[in-house]
Amino acid sequence: MRILNNKAYDVKIAYIGGGSRGWAWGLMSDLAMDDSMNGTVCLYDICSESTEKNCIIGNKYSSLKDSKGEWTYTVAYNLADTLQDADFVIISILPGTFEQMRSDVHSPEKYGIYQPVGDTVGPGGFIRALRTVPMFVEIASAIKEHSPNAWVINYTNPMSVSLKALYTVFPEIKAFGCCHEVFETQKLLAQMLYDCKGIEATREDININVLGINHFTWIDFARYHDIDLLPIYSEFVKTHYDEGYILRKGSDWRSDLFASAERVKFDLFCRYGYIAAAGDRHLAEFCPGSWYLQSPESINRWRFKLTTVDWRVANLEEKLMRRERLITGEESVVLNATGEEGHILMQALLGIREIISNVNLPNIGQVRNLPLGTIVETNAIFRSGEIRPVVSGKVPENILGVMAHHVYSQEMTVSAAISCDKELAFSVFANDPLVTISLEEAKELFNTMISNTLPFLPEKWRN
Amino acid sequence: MRILNNKAYDVKIAYIGGGSRGWAWGLMSDLAMDDSMNGTVCLYDICSESTEKNCIIGNKYSSLKDSKGEWTYTVAYNLADTLQDADFVIISILPGTFEQMRSDVHSPEKYGIYQPVGDTVGPGGFIRALRTVPMFVEIASAIKEHSPNAWVINYTNPMSVSLKALYTVFPEIKAFGCCHEVFETQKLLAQMLYDCKGIEATREDININVLGINHFTWIDFARYHDIDLLPIYSEFVKTHYDEGYILRKGSDWRSDLFASAERVKFDLFCRYGYIAAAGDRHLAEFCPGSWYLQSPESINRWRFKLTTVDWRVANLEEKLMRRERLITGEESVVLNATGEEGHILMQALLGIREIISNVNLPNIGQVRNLPLGTIVETNAIFRSGEIRPVVSGKVPENILGVMAHHVYSQEMTVSAAISCDKELAFSVFANDPLVTISLEEAKELFNTMISNTLPFLPEKWRN
Amino acid sequence: MRILNNKAYDVKIAYIGGGSRGWAWGLMSDLAMDDSMNGTVCLYDICSESTEKNCIIGNKYSSLKDSKGEWTYTVAYNLADTLQDADFVIISILPGTFEQMRSDVHSPEKYGIYQPVGDTVGPGGFIRALRTVPMFVEIASAIKEHSPNAWVINYTNPMSVSLKALYTVFPEIKAFGCCHEVFETQKLLAQMLYDCKGIEATREDININVLGINHFTWIDFARYHDIDLLPIYSEFVKTHYDEGYILRKGSDWRSDLFASAERVKFDLFCRYGYIAAAGDRHLAEFCPGSWYLQSPESINRWRFKLTTVDWRVANLEEKLMRRERLITGEESVVLNATGEEGHILMQALLGIREIISNVNLPNIGQVRNLPLGTIVETNAIFRSGEIRPVVSGKVPENILGVMAHHVYSQEMTVSAAISCDKELAFSVFANDPLVTISLEEAKELFNTMISNTLPFLPEKWRN
Amino acid sequence: MRILNNKAYDVKIAYIGGGSRGWAWGLMSDLAMDDSMNGTVCLYDICSESTEKNCIIGNKYSSLKDSKGEWTYTVAYNLADTLQDADFVIISILPGTFEQMRSDVHSPEKYGIYQPVGDTVGPGGFIRALRTVPMFVEIASAIKEHSPNAWVINYTNPMSVSLKALYTVFPEIKAFGCCHEVFETQKLLAQMLYDCKGIEATREDININVLGINHFTWIDFARYHDIDLLPIYSEFVKTHYDEGYILRKGSDWRSDLFASAERVKFDLFCRYGYIAAAGDRHLAEFCPGSWYLQSPESINRWRFKLTTVDWRVANLEEKLMRRERLITGEESVVLNATGEEGHILMQALLGIREIISNVNLPNIGQVRNLPLGTIVETNAIFRSGEIRPVVSGKVPENILGVMAHHVYSQEMTVSAAISCDKELAFSVFANDPLVTISLEEAKELFNTMISNTLPFLPEKWRN
Repeated sequence: MRILNNKAYDVKIAYIGGGSRGWAWGLMSDLAMDDSMNGTVCLYDICSESTEKNCIIGNKYSSLKDSKGEWTYTVAYNLADTLQDADFVIISILPGTFEQMRSDVHSPEKYGIYQPVGDTVGPGGFIRALRTVPMFVEIASAIKEHSPNAWVINYTNPMSVSLKALYTVFPEIKAFGCCHEVFETQKLLAQMLYDCKGIEATREDININVLGINHFTWIDFARYHDIDLLPIYSEFVKTHYDEGYILRKGSDWRSDLFASAERVKFDLFCRYGYIAAAGDRHLAEFCPGSWYLQSPESINRWRFKLTTVDWRVANLEEKLMRRERLITGEESVVLNATGEEGHILMQALLGIREIISNVNLPNIGQVRNLPLGTIVETNAIFRSGEIRPVVSGKVPENILGVMAHHVYSQEMTVSAAISCDKELAFSVFANDPLVTISLEEAKELFNTMISNTLPFLPEKWRN
Repeated sequence: MRILNNKAYDVKIAYIGGGSRGWAWGLMSDLAMDDSMNGTVCLYDICSESTEKNCIIGNKYSSLKDSKGEWTYTVAYNLADTLQDADFVIISILPGTFEQMRSDVHSPEKYGIYQPVGDTVGPGGFIRALRTVPMFVEIASAIKEHSPNAWVINYTNPMSVSLKALYTVFPEIKAFGCCHEVFETQKLLAQMLYDCKGIEATREDININVLGINHFTWIDFARYHDIDLLPIYSEFVKTHYDEGYILRKGSDWRSDLFASAERVKFDLFCRYGYIAAAGDRHLAEFCPGSWYLQSPESINRWRFKLTTVDWRVANLEEKLMRRERLITGEESVVLNATGEEGHILMQALLGIREIISNVNLPNIGQVRNLPLGTIVETNAIFRSGEIRPVVSGKVPENILGVMAHHVYSQEMTVSAAISCDKELAFSVFANDPLVTISLEEAKELFNTMISNTLPFLPEKWRN
Repeated sequence: MRILNNKAYDVKIAYIGGGSRGWAWGLMSDLAMDDSMNGTVCLYDICSESTEKNCIIGNKYSSLKDSKGEWTYTVAYNLADTLQDADFVIISILPGTFEQMRSDVHSPEKYGIYQPVGDTVGPGGFIRALRTVPMFVEIASAIKEHSPNAWVINYTNPMSVSLKALYTVFPEIKAFGCCHEVFETQKLLAQMLYDCKGIEATREDININVLGINHFTWIDFARYHDIDLLPIYSEFVKTHYDEGYILRKGSDWRSDLFASAERVKFDLFCRYGYIAAAGDRHLAEFCPGSWYLQSPESINRWRFKLTTVDWRVANLEEKLMRRERLITGEESVVLNATGEEGHILMQALLGIREIISNVNLPNIGQVRNLPLGTIVETNAIFRSGEIRPVVSGKVPENILGVMAHHVYSQEMTVSAAISCDKELAFSVFANDPLVTISLEEAKELFNTMISNTLPFLPEKWRN
Repeated sequence: MRILNNKAYDVKIAYIGGGSRGWAWGLMSDLAMDDSMNGTVCLYDICSESTEKNCIIGNKYSSLKDSKGEWTYTVAYNLADTLQDADFVIISILPGTFEQMRSDVHSPEKYGIYQPVGDTVGPGGFIRALRTVPMFVEIASAIKEHSPNAWVINYTNPMSVSLKALYTVFPEIKAFGCCHEVFETQKLLAQMLYDCKGIEATREDININVLGINHFTWIDFARYHDIDLLPIYSEFVKTHYDEGYILRKGSDWRSDLFASAERVKFDLFCRYGYIAAAGDRHLAEFCPGSWYLQSPESINRWRFKLTTVDWRVANLEEKLMRRERLITGEESVVLNATGEEGHILMQALLGIREIISNVNLPNIGQVRNLPLGTIVETNAIFRSGEIRPVVSGKVPENILGVMAHHVYSQEMTVSAAISCDKELAFSVFANDPLVTISLEEAKELFNTMISNTLPFLPEKWRN
């Protein structure tokens, strides 16, 4: 890699999970639209057919005539080859198949435990973590061996646990985790500013201080120029508490499985006085089961949906068909900014620009009242060769009561997953705030879910 | 005060809450049986009739012919007089009347929230804290002015919050909190040792490491000489999990409102692998509502009772009648060791002996993973002029998830009570793990309970 | 104050020490050259003649035809009036007169203790602190009363102790300290880059991570785009170790009392492997006396000078004459950027721009291995309504040995100065690494220096 | 090992350095006089002749008719055999020979650096650490493999660095370090109590709070029953400051190379107001060179001597002759309590008794303002199966300035010694407060000293 006149040449990106349907294409589009870098993207996935097909699609993006970044897409068939000479490693994998996800999300329903996402915390998030961590252990070892100086960007959930696994295996790793949930809250604040004050602003205009853990992140300071947004938000919440608020026309919670009416966010503001900065579906999973997820009816009252895995299966089908059309040329690849910041953060780390953005990193002081080493989400400065988190202060103590539970679980989850310690694993599982059932029932549910995910667990779990 | 030949003369004890029916008489008995100290006990209470009557009873204890400690009991009518020249200050008060206690314990039942004690955490403990803190603020100010060098022993609940209030107002105060709940668990371990190994031991023989917060204290190390008691306890729990265990013949949970069958303790051991060191009725209140206190039926299954305030009212009647009998001489005062350690700790602080015992103190390093300043319960060395807590290690992380919630509430509770900040108070109230109701219902309950306790709250609450 | 189209109107700056000869004129020039803000600068000084004269000069800057910022200069005669409605408070005062400074710098020479500056640490810095702190106590109280929400920028030395005093009196104060020493080191790195690689860069192009305490600040990371500057510096040091390096033509250490040949900086690099980011004259004062300041001869070998107070007296004469010329118009005021960042930081805090720069602030996590609350110097993000220090990591442990000594003194110095505790003061004084004399001699020197500065100490010192 | 009726049977002690002349015989005597334990002592030393001879002597002690402990002494020829089944491991070795010690102590004298002991800090202590650490690395590995559950008692200097090495290699090791320097200070206080108040007390009667690092340990609280000893010490210091104080008749500093007149201790009290709890010869080495060790003359004025290695060589000769006499029976072994507490601590850990004593351990919270993990010296409770340090508070900040330097060096020294990093080693060496010479001279001295100790350094140092 070289920098010349503020442009980066021969950048090497290793993309683990490069066979993805959808997310990969977004990255390809972002890279193609960015004129400040060029180089190679080496795709790797456990499904080599998918990788090969995405390679074709990637090169189609590159050869679009309005493409500005010149990227060559290649395929690797093992981690060692993928990581060779990498400047950046992107990790965006799906741990397990939809069958595992089905168990994560739906098995607990029999016990009255409802999860809108099931990929971060709760019984589903925990079981997903158990199968994700061993994959990240393998990846971390490979990075340590083959590309120890590369910047590693993780997009995989559960975010905190995945990053913690990387740092546990290879403490010197230069890994960080990106998530767009905070961006959405910035957009909500921008929209609020327009509604309440008639001021048009982009999400980048909304200065915020971010602190917490991924998917349970909070904003305790928000400004647009010299305007303090917290008092305005307070009024906004009062106005919309009962009915909720539809941020995006056409993205109504009644029809869109991923949408919400922000009612959980508003309720949390009434409880704590700070702005929760993630989607309602995620936020609800961190709270005591009695608050938002007591029953399908109560979820309906809070105005969001439980995402079914059936929907995901159907949606995948569509994407696979689209993939074929893209390859045959029946459908053309089209440049379209995703709003993700991955390529911008790369520019910054290469020294081409400077940006302040929110990011997941081990706590080295950015959040004073969470333990050092916990993976936390705060703002950081990205610039030439460095990511420096800002000192973001303390999580408000009231919120901390609910948050700390998950923070303490984080490390134990990684530890149980690495050591395959079934007893510790169950102890953490039964302790989750959503697991409001007896120890006996919890044991039964745990055994069922472990059994369903067993094909993706290390050998030790079979003993 | 002077020490001569390892005996203390002219010790001055100021006893706030000295009009108590029952507890005071126990102290009088303990002091009378102790030949290493003598001096004056100055009683003070908001009810002067009670103080005066207890003064008579106290002097009866002193004049028993087998009484070894020579103590004179006097009465004071304000804090300043009480504290004058005190070497020790004992605080053992009942904040409010049974009417307030009735509201604390029973008001939440309408919302399906059941509390066996209601004096530490949960909605009842919180409201009790709101009226207790201002009293401790007043006491702390008086101690700061009149007896800043006295050792201050608190027995009042909520323990942690009361102590925190003392230290908030007067950071140099030499206050500590005593609670016998841990002793009971030592006795359980001694009894277990007899049952399982045929070894007879007293509670003092059971070496333990104690850590946590009052009424949610834990033992992670327990030995009798070279015998590790944890594996034995593990077997013991397996044997008795289903049926529970009756520690004291004649103190069956079916008939004794304060007894339990230790099933909560055993369930917590199954969850975490450590020994919970408090009574089941207290322990249950710290856990998510869905675990032990879901309904009167589930409480019955866990084999303990909800203590009614009616019972307490009736019990008080009996004590008042006994008081009259003691004063008239119809009934004689009798020496009877209580098992409380108060007088022994005094001896130690005077330099007469040395003892290691559990105590509530601000965290200055004794529990590594709880915030500095939190009131924690651990072992400490008591000896001439000093209490030095031992470094007790880390609360196991799994337990910490549940414990931290209460730790963070502790400081906010004191802060809300001192500042009379209704908004913060409600935020803490609604955040309690037992408050598994909607924000709206929580608000309603909060208002009712505040209104019931209003006569004991500072003026500001009436605005 | 209002913001319109990214320009700030009616900004109110309160300038304490506004009678300064020199520094004030620089600020006037910077403000006049800045088209993004306008408003009022209210000057205050204990010498009202100086304030009034500077007011005239300030308004001359404003009325220059190429002046872009429109500022009105006014005079106040007490702190209350000065601070009224202030958006920003600038503190840049000289504590005491040259007579006190003469004692600070020269009294210790009799004992073989040489100080090139004597305003930060060492016996001189300590005594200066004793008379500065009470002034800052007064200022902090006034700010608390009259402008609690203003941003407070301190330029006064001793920097750390002054800021600590502000925060001790008024913990919620929004104060920070600016110092240009780090800029000079950035310039040195830029010059080095040119010398070694032929690359032209400005100081702003040199990305650094800064950490330490004022005047003993360190750089452990330095980049120009993708070029790591530390290995280059290592070579640079080898080349210039013996002879030193003259950064600025015409600013030779042989003729310029404030210049150095960077030999201390180079020696410290050889010792520790990190770049010291302050002038040699300051750096040397933090180190054991035997390293650089053993004797005038050794100082000469290290290639810098001991600044005499005589020179300062003469220099002041010149400035006073120039002041008269400026007022009479004999000499015209001329716009000339100072390179100070004060006005840029103001812009940022008003929300007009965003900047990352080094700043002195209480440690809230930015330096992990220095105590919380210590005034430290690191980078921070300045933007609308907030200063967020970045997590700068740990001071390298070897450096910490020398640095910690001063860190621990910082708090004790403030505490001794506020409480007028002569015993504590002497204990800190005698403990300074430059005070390499016997306790008896130290006492003698201490008494002499206290006596010389007594007119500027609170009454209590006279007892 | 078994405990019966509060007596321990079949205790196995592994004694590394068991060939020692003098120290070993003391232990043998202590064990023989203790009727609460019996078992086997397995001696190991790099010099097998010494071990074998000590084995004979040990068994002579056991067969004395007034010997109460029944101990069998055996010899092992490698670490594995030595450690097999050990309940306790004693480490008391001399790292290197007198030739190395000669270089440690005397080489720096050429540069004006004088060290009375040279085994803890200063250039001598540092070089000694470099050759000691690899030995402890080997021992720690062997313990990890062969006796991971044994209690490990270290007596070797440098104490802190040796323990740190053990914990670095095997973090779960149950190691602690014993040193009698604090006992001597307790004896001084007891003697003072007799002189000033006519009260006879033993050192065990003197309650103290201990905190700091080995050989630079401090007492901030000292009581005899209800008597506060600090004000008495303050008077005592005033009285004896000029002339010093001879604690032991017949142990005058003019004739006894290991004695002092406590003048350093008194001077440090004048500086800081706390009692330094180690011998003057050790204390002086931790302070800036200009305070006590400037020249042989100044050392003489401070009233202690520089111990020469020649003396040690001569002394060894005497001991070897005595050894022969003991073996031939020309001289009889005689029971004589050493005053060391090793055997008492063993009893406590076996559950036979309980004791509070000072001990060196990694900081887990016992000293709040020293880094976690630093080897610190404080009081601890020793009882069945556990050592629990007490929370000893904060090192007074003034003292911390001087102490911290050594604390930071501790970890770097271990790190440099393990990694054989010559550059880091030199950086630490040159940073020592006694190394008041130029970088160039320091380099020269460092190279000389390394070269002298090279036979005892790992291979890597030869590159």
